Amino acid sequence: MIYDSPIEVRHTLHQNPEKTLQEHETTEYLFRELSKVDGITLHRPFLLGLVAEYRVNDGDYLLFRADIDALNIKEETGWEFASKNDCMHACGHDVHTAILYGLVLTVVEKRPNQNVLFFFQPAEEGGGGAQKTVDTGFFDRYAIRCSFALHVNDDYPFGSVATNDHVLFASSSEIDVLFQGVGAHVAYPTEGKNTLLALRYFLDAIDRMPREVEKPFLFSAGKVAAGEVRNIQPAKAFIQATMRTVSTEENDKMFDQIEKMAEHIEKLTGVEIRVKRLSVYPEVKIDKGLYDRLIPKLRERYQVLKAPMKMVGEDFGVFCHLYPSILFWLGTRREAFYPLHHPKYLPSDDIIPVGIEFLYDLFTFLSDEPAL
Amino acid sequence: MIYDSPIEVRHTLHQNPEKTLQEHETTEYLFRELSKVDGITLHRPFLLGLVAEYRVNDGDYLLFRADIDALNIKEETGWEFASKNDCMHACGHDVHTAILYGLVLTVVEKRPNQNVLFFFQPAEEGGGGAQKTVDTGFFDRYAIRCSFALHVNDDYPFGSVATNDHVLFASSSEIDVLFQGVGAHVAYPTEGKNTLLALRYFLDAIDRMPREVEKPFLFSAGKVAAGEVRNIQPAKAFIQATMRTVSTEENDKMFDQIEKMAEHIEKLTGVEIRVKRLSVYPEVKIDKGLYDRLIPKLRERYQVLKAPMKMVGEDFGVFCHLYPSILFWLGTRREAFYPLHHPKYLPSDDIIPVGIEFLYDLFTFLSDEPAL
Repeated sequence: MIYDSPIEVRHTLHQNPEKTLQEHETTEYLFRELSKVDGITLHRPFLLGLVAEYRVNDGDYLLFRADIDALNIKEETGWEFASKNDCMHACGHDVHTAILYGLVLTVVEKRPNQNVLFFFQPAEEGGGGAQKTVDTGFFDRYAIRCSFALHVNDDYPFGSVATNDHVLFASSSEIDVLFQGVGAHVAYPTEGKNTLLALRYFLDAIDRMPREVEKPFLFSAGKVAAGEVRNIQPAKAFIQATMRTVSTEENDKMFDQIEKMAEHIEKLTGVEIRVKRLSVYPEVKIDKGLYDRLIPKLRERYQVLKAPMKMVGEDFGVFCHLYPSILFWLGTRREAFYPLHHPKYLPSDDIIPVGIEFLYDLFTFLSDEPAL
Repeated sequence: MIYDSPIEVRHTLHQNPEKTLQEHETTEYLFRELSKVDGITLHRPFLLGLVAEYRVNDGDYLLFRADIDALNIKEETGWEFASKNDCMHACGHDVHTAILYGLVLTVVEKRPNQNVLFFFQPAEEGGGGAQKTVDTGFFDRYAIRCSFALHVNDDYPFGSVATNDHVLFASSSEIDVLFQGVGAHVAYPTEGKNTLLALRYFLDAIDRMPREVEKPFLFSAGKVAAGEVRNIQPAKAFIQATMRTVSTEENDKMFDQIEKMAEHIEKLTGVEIRVKRLSVYPEVKIDKGLYDRLIPKLRERYQVLKAPMKMVGEDFGVFCHLYPSILFWLGTRREAFYPLHHPKYLPSDDIIPVGIEFLYDLFTFLSDEPAL
């Protein structure tokens, strides 16, 4: 039976992007194409996304993950396979998916003696697709030795790979702060409880919070509002913020400090402050043991660069906390440079065979390793 | 011909309040009633409001002013003459108007030898009705010796009057501040120009701006907003503020300082800052000469209290800058106390004859004075 090539898969996905938690057509398309492939079993543990299982023995499994969702961005590439709707695969998930699809084809063709799960994951862009799928218990049925993911990036030269041996993406949490005070005419400031004042104290205190300077930390408010009319002191205010730390533990610790600080500001201002943490994405923590074993082998065939930690989040962090894991940046830079999420970011198709070969090499190295 | 009594006028106005710059029915009603009164000429210099002129010689004029507009407040008094719509005379303008109307009746009855203009002014509550009417040039035609207004207030005992010999209401200006920066993902703070940061610098700098501590000053933001989404540094922000000072000159001076400060913060942050002053109400400046002459006489018949300056605005300030003027608080407090603009503030009808008598006494004292 004839199935689409990895590059055709990429074109199809790129033309028909679907937003986080709306990847219905994408899931159906991948399911349909992978159903044609002999030698794998398909699973749909969650509403969206799917897992292809390659099983040849009673041993352990490797887990490879790609993300399938797109962004709410209007494409500006002018490409012949450009998006047909208002979304865009501006974070390269179409490429990741095509590479993982290609890895499936390569594995069933070469039939190595190592079990694998290929996870086409939904909702990476803030939807918590990794955790949602893990929460179904599906992966608990498998002895997973380690997990891997790739992420394209113009920061690195075409065909190179980059990672590090500690943390690649920060732990990220969404934080809402609500301030409830009492309105008063601006001419009578002592008659009210001014939430704008409490909000400013709060942001000031966070800027000045004692912390370990070696540990990257970020608290940033993207949306802030206070009050309703010019001449009444604001009775209500809110902050929508995100906090990024080197680890989930650090995230918990800093959140505790912020809550304590808010209590003091409540006493100081009389304004009620409610600090809510909406979600915590774990950091993408690279397994040092795995790194030390694999990198020397990879260096023989690839340009392997050291990547700095970034204060962005990636929900592959969920797997990093379950299994020894590595996420690799896959360099896509040629002449033009565009950052991820840019309406003109467009890795070229020929990175796809490079990614497939790289993952299969990784696969081969690990097949030679002793089982769990 | 029979015309409504001052208390009937008060009831009619209270039941049919009209908001700032919408006082059409109020104007028509007053025009109709005052048309029945012999011995005065009516003028309608502006779209809304009216002036009754009493002229008996070629000498100068006294100007008495009342304000006729109501507030966007739902009445909660349960009074038999309570508002029939969603507005309310919660600032006592119905009482001021009834008193001025009563003063017209008293003057035409007693026929003193002193010219007077009775100004029923629209749009005191932020609509700039005083300035709008002055701008027509109408008052330029008259030699106005001095001007007066009353304002009811539960702060003072029933029947007392209160004023001071310097400034009774602050100069008030509306200030908008717009911040235009560049958005950036929170993880890459150096790639953007963060308007929330510029906004905080701006408010901090105002709090810490050197100023003469003896001069009351207030800069207060009633409405503030920055940014649109949690994980992007705000590209836009704004402040809607009001500034209150002891004088228009001081308002100009402080505004200059704020503009200069904003320029420095622009340079510091790279964020464009536009500081706009939308309006400046002059302070209600009491004429000390007039005060010194009148108060001893008034003390013989009334409880005259010293009123502190308040950081609220009153557009009678416009007249204070044209003519020697006094605004008197007229005390309305009995058992219950409600602040102005409260949905339950309701001076009792019997303050109206007190007010009329007080203004006529004032009138008499001034008639005895040498003309201009």
